[in-house]
Amino acid sequence: MTLSSQRLLQLKEFEDKIGYIFNDKKLIDVAFTHSSYTNEVKNEVMSNERLEFLGDSVLDMVVSEILFKNYHKKPEGWLTKTRSRLVCTDSFAKASEKYDLTSYLNFGHGEKKQGGEFKKHVKADTFEAVCAAIYLDAGYEFLFDFITNNYREDALKIIENDAIFNDYKTRLQEYYNAHDKKILKYTLVDQTGPEHDKVFTMSVKVGNKTLATGTGKNKKKAEQDAAKNAYERLKND
Amino acid sequence: MTLSSQRLLQLKEFEDKIGYIFNDKKLIDVAFTHSSYTNEVKNEVMSNERLEFLGDSVLDMVVSEILFKNYHKKPEGWLTKTRSRLVCTDSFAKASEKYDLTSYLNFGHGEKKQGGEFKKHVKADTFEAVCAAIYLDAGYEFLFDFITNNYREDALKIIENDAIFNDYKTRLQEYYNAHDKKILKYTLVDQTGPEHDKVFTMSVKVGNKTLATGTGKNKKKAEQDAAKNAYERLKND
Repeated sequence: MTLSSQRLLQLKEFEDKIGYIFNDKKLIDVAFTHSSYTNEVKNEVMSNERLEFLGDSVLDMVVSEILFKNYHKKPEGWLTKTRSRLVCTDSFAKASEKYDLTSYLNFGHGEKKQGGEFKKHVKADTFEAVCAAIYLDAGYEFLFDFITNNYREDALKIIENDAIFNDYKTRLQEYYNAHDKKILKYTLVDQTGPEHDKVFTMSVKVGNKTLATGTGKNKKKAEQDAAKNAYERLKND
Repeated sequence: MTLSSQRLLQLKEFEDKIGYIFNDKKLIDVAFTHSSYTNEVKNEVMSNERLEFLGDSVLDMVVSEILFKNYHKKPEGWLTKTRSRLVCTDSFAKASEKYDLTSYLNFGHGEKKQGGEFKKHVKADTFEAVCAAIYLDAGYEFLFDFITNNYREDALKIIENDAIFNDYKTRLQEYYNAHDKKILKYTLVDQTGPEHDKVFTMSVKVGNKTLATGTGKNKKKAEQDAAKNAYERLKND
């Protein structure tokens, strides 16, 4: 099957965006072909599902290598946890939005009507398939640089958020470990606001004594806020 | 820290086995250093845990690429299922035994006494760490060839076993789909023998009619055997 000139124009637009010309146009066309399309067309058209399979592994490796090489001092546990925060549907869907990848997808009529283009897992799957196509056509190094250049800042935000997150709870616990070896306990004390915009209040206690409370959009953030307030109070004591 | 001449000799033996000389001897030394050793030594010795982290991803990618490139017609579901059969503790532990990798490990005394060398997960972890070291020192292509040349036959056995497995149950169901669209049901009818050597008997029924029974060391194998017996009976009818 040859690609229509209209399709080639569409693909060229994508190539211009990412600054790479594919040797194998059919490969990138397949990466942009949703299974709903092949189910409707019924002839020998391939969907991007096999590329997704490969892309999943390739991205896992790229992210692992970036973490391994940039965080020499971090233990395996941190690397594994951070990788799982970076290699996930949420983060791949966001990465997909940067180049509006799903706008290039061949969809079946049903899926198109159901807004497949806007579904988070479709966005993430397309990102995986496109990265596999880049890997196969341009090689590992090109993909590595593509990911580093395009998603470094987003990844750092996720990693740093994590670091701040851990920081206050860990710092507070370390303080108590050093002093009286007591375990800190976090308890939900309140939640207010409508379903889509809840605010949680958590307290942090040592034994029966409440050290501080904190608020946040989820329990984890509220715990961090409580730990931060308790920690800052300690410093001012 | 410099490596002792005794350690270098040990590592050389390993290099001779796999036919590759490491540029970075410390890297392969770390790959062969169990965390129990670093916990005891307490100075700046690194264990192989971070390499394990990287090796896990690298092996996932190598296996994915091999499957992707050799099984063009297989759908994503098959690729994913097969990858999970190949990328697992069992299969990595076996791969590790081929070069007796755990015999090169630096262990702490405690772990050594507890027979760490013979633990399945230690074998698998060491395989991951060594593969990461090969990747970092020799590059992806070398590792890809190393895996392909050394483990092709073992992998094929696993893949083909799977294929035979699927074959009879699938063939039998396909026969019934084509004839009266009835769903086949597999039921456990008996299990005998001691805990470590059980034999399971499964029956395959269509509606209330038992087509055949089969036996095996686990339910899956007994189901396959039942399907095989039923299928062969059909052919002879």
